[in-house]
Amino acid sequence: MSEPQSPATLADVARVARVHLSTASRVLHSTGAESRRAAGPQTADRIRQVARELNYMRDPAARQLRTRRSSQLAVLVPRLSDLVLATIYEGIQGRAIERGYTTYVANTQDQDELRMRLTDVALARRSDGLIFGDASLDHTFLDELRGRGVPVVLVSRRSGDHISATCDDVAGGALVADHLAGLGHQRLAVIGGVPWASTAVDRIEGFIGRLGELGREVATDLRVQNGFDARSGYAAALRCLERPDPPSAIFAVNDFAALGAMGAAHSLGLQVGRDVAIVGYNDTSLAEVAPLPLTSVRSPMRDMGTAAADLMIDLIEGVAVESVVLAPELVPRESTLGRVAT
Amino acid sequence: MSEPQSPATLADVARVARVHLSTASRVLHSTGAESRRAAGPQTADRIRQVARELNYMRDPAARQLRTRRSSQLAVLVPRLSDLVLATIYEGIQGRAIERGYTTYVANTQDQDELRMRLTDVALARRSDGLIFGDASLDHTFLDELRGRGVPVVLVSRRSGDHISATCDDVAGGALVADHLAGLGHQRLAVIGGVPWASTAVDRIEGFIGRLGELGREVATDLRVQNGFDARSGYAAALRCLERPDPPSAIFAVNDFAALGAMGAAHSLGLQVGRDVAIVGYNDTSLAEVAPLPLTSVRSPMRDMGTAAADLMIDLIEGVAVESVVLAPELVPRESTLGRVAT
Repeated sequence: MSEPQSPATLADVARVARVHLSTASRVLHSTGAESRRAAGPQTADRIRQVARELNYMRDPAARQLRTRRSSQLAVLVPRLSDLVLATIYEGIQGRAIERGYTTYVANTQDQDELRMRLTDVALARRSDGLIFGDASLDHTFLDELRGRGVPVVLVSRRSGDHISATCDDVAGGALVADHLAGLGHQRLAVIGGVPWASTAVDRIEGFIGRLGELGREVATDLRVQNGFDARSGYAAALRCLERPDPPSAIFAVNDFAALGAMGAAHSLGLQVGRDVAIVGYNDTSLAEVAPLPLTSVRSPMRDMGTAAADLMIDLIEGVAVESVVLAPELVPRESTLGRVAT
Repeated sequence: MSEPQSPATLADVARVARVHLSTASRVLHSTGAESRRAAGPQTADRIRQVARELNYMRDPAARQLRTRRSSQLAVLVPRLSDLVLATIYEGIQGRAIERGYTTYVANTQDQDELRMRLTDVALARRSDGLIFGDASLDHTFLDELRGRGVPVVLVSRRSGDHISATCDDVAGGALVADHLAGLGHQRLAVIGGVPWASTAVDRIEGFIGRLGELGREVATDLRVQNGFDARSGYAAALRCLERPDPPSAIFAVNDFAALGAMGAAHSLGLQVGRDVAIVGYNDTSLAEVAPLPLTSVRSPMRDMGTAAADLMIDLIEGVAVESVVLAPELVPRESTLGRVAT
């Protein structure tokens, strides 16, 4: 690695930019409103320009000594190729920047070993706290981490009594049951997800529970839990639809699995919305503009991220916090209602 | 923030785990093959367990003094909710871990101001180098950064003479032209992307250039560049298809835009693959199992990530590197071929 030039001090930057030391500090070291208050946009641009030209680098170690904090948050998710987690992370990053923190994110692939290693990396890097988007219902690891004094917040998936920002997934599952029962469906399937994630478990529980209240059952061979991605949804739906007594409606516990289920129905020559109803979950950006508009349960993904960032930073800064549970909303579209005249 | 207990030293860990100091060090500080060579799986597990119980934290500052490197790579992407970038990042992270580096990623939203700020954060954190997945064709900022001695590698989008790992997007665009011309299409549209991204510019150039060689033109009002997401694809396709002389085939420069374009065709009562042909790009996991299988150009996304990580680490470690260009491949499906008998 080529060595950068010897770094300038903040005083060098202030002198060259012709501003007071405190102005340079506030422009370069704060974010959002505070940074904007420190100087007009032209002055702020000049200060940043000078800082770059002089190769000014703030010393994170020195800052840490002053504040005993790194103002860095680590975020661990199963995989960012899951649009839900990617959107949640955008919410986390946005709010963290507003509050003067930076974030970084890594994929644990839902694997214990990788989660542990990435947690060790985060602590070695002196992250102020960890936000987990990949919590398992088994919370041994999270309990141990909290026991060591590490601030921990969960997002998307709840676990044990850990502080979390989630959607009310039981209520969301019940909304799907009400919708499909209201349309007259008797034979129903539920597919997707993994048994260690509260998101899947709660949605399924809410769905089956409410159907039970409405006098309907979900046959055990029409319950297939095999993953959150489109391919898993395709395989699970195919298995249900190829049975001699196929379901007339399928609830996939997330949108990617639902899109795969639509592909499976199509491959069998079934028209979604007429021959079989399909519902997804999360109402991702794809649901509305999909090749065939998908009925989905809107979960406030970005708000969940924002809430998780607030919980984490409040916790770090010593403010009392309580878990946040956001309300879901069902958005009915053609995949359950059938074709509306064009 | 509650203070963790006073951290143990590596010697403490080695003593309690009853192993040699160097064994503990190699298990806890190396990754992949080297870590596996250091001890058997049971011993390695015991060492990690002891390290956690004793609250051992490796001191990154001390390590940096030893190696003058942080073994951290920063990755900046436009947005991780773009499945292409999320998949590329999985490739980067996977290879980096294998080679003993950790990575973190942040979203720049393709905004200059945010890109600069996140770059400053990465440098303040002493990242060894930066991988940009959001390069603009204007490479002023990248030139300046390289001029300061910072190792820079691009992925997905090329720019100037910077080292990059990309797909041959001009060739990919030409593949689409050959495919659609071969199916007899005369009136063609090209949609999606942004004018500052080489991915969009090169795919469009390859497409229009090859069509020109084949004696076909793309009318300027059937070229719509408005973004990479599904909503943009929906809006752009609607605009083309609602014209009095609509195209019989649409090339969307990425899969999400293509899925949106399929939604637009559906909303107008058109059957994709029969009334209008649609092609995407990247062959993301959704293309094959989509509600209607999507013809797409396979770009080796994960391999691009792996190659970018290798280029970055080679650069940091002083190995000579050259840009990597991977070959695309067209995968024909129902969205252009029409319904195959089921």
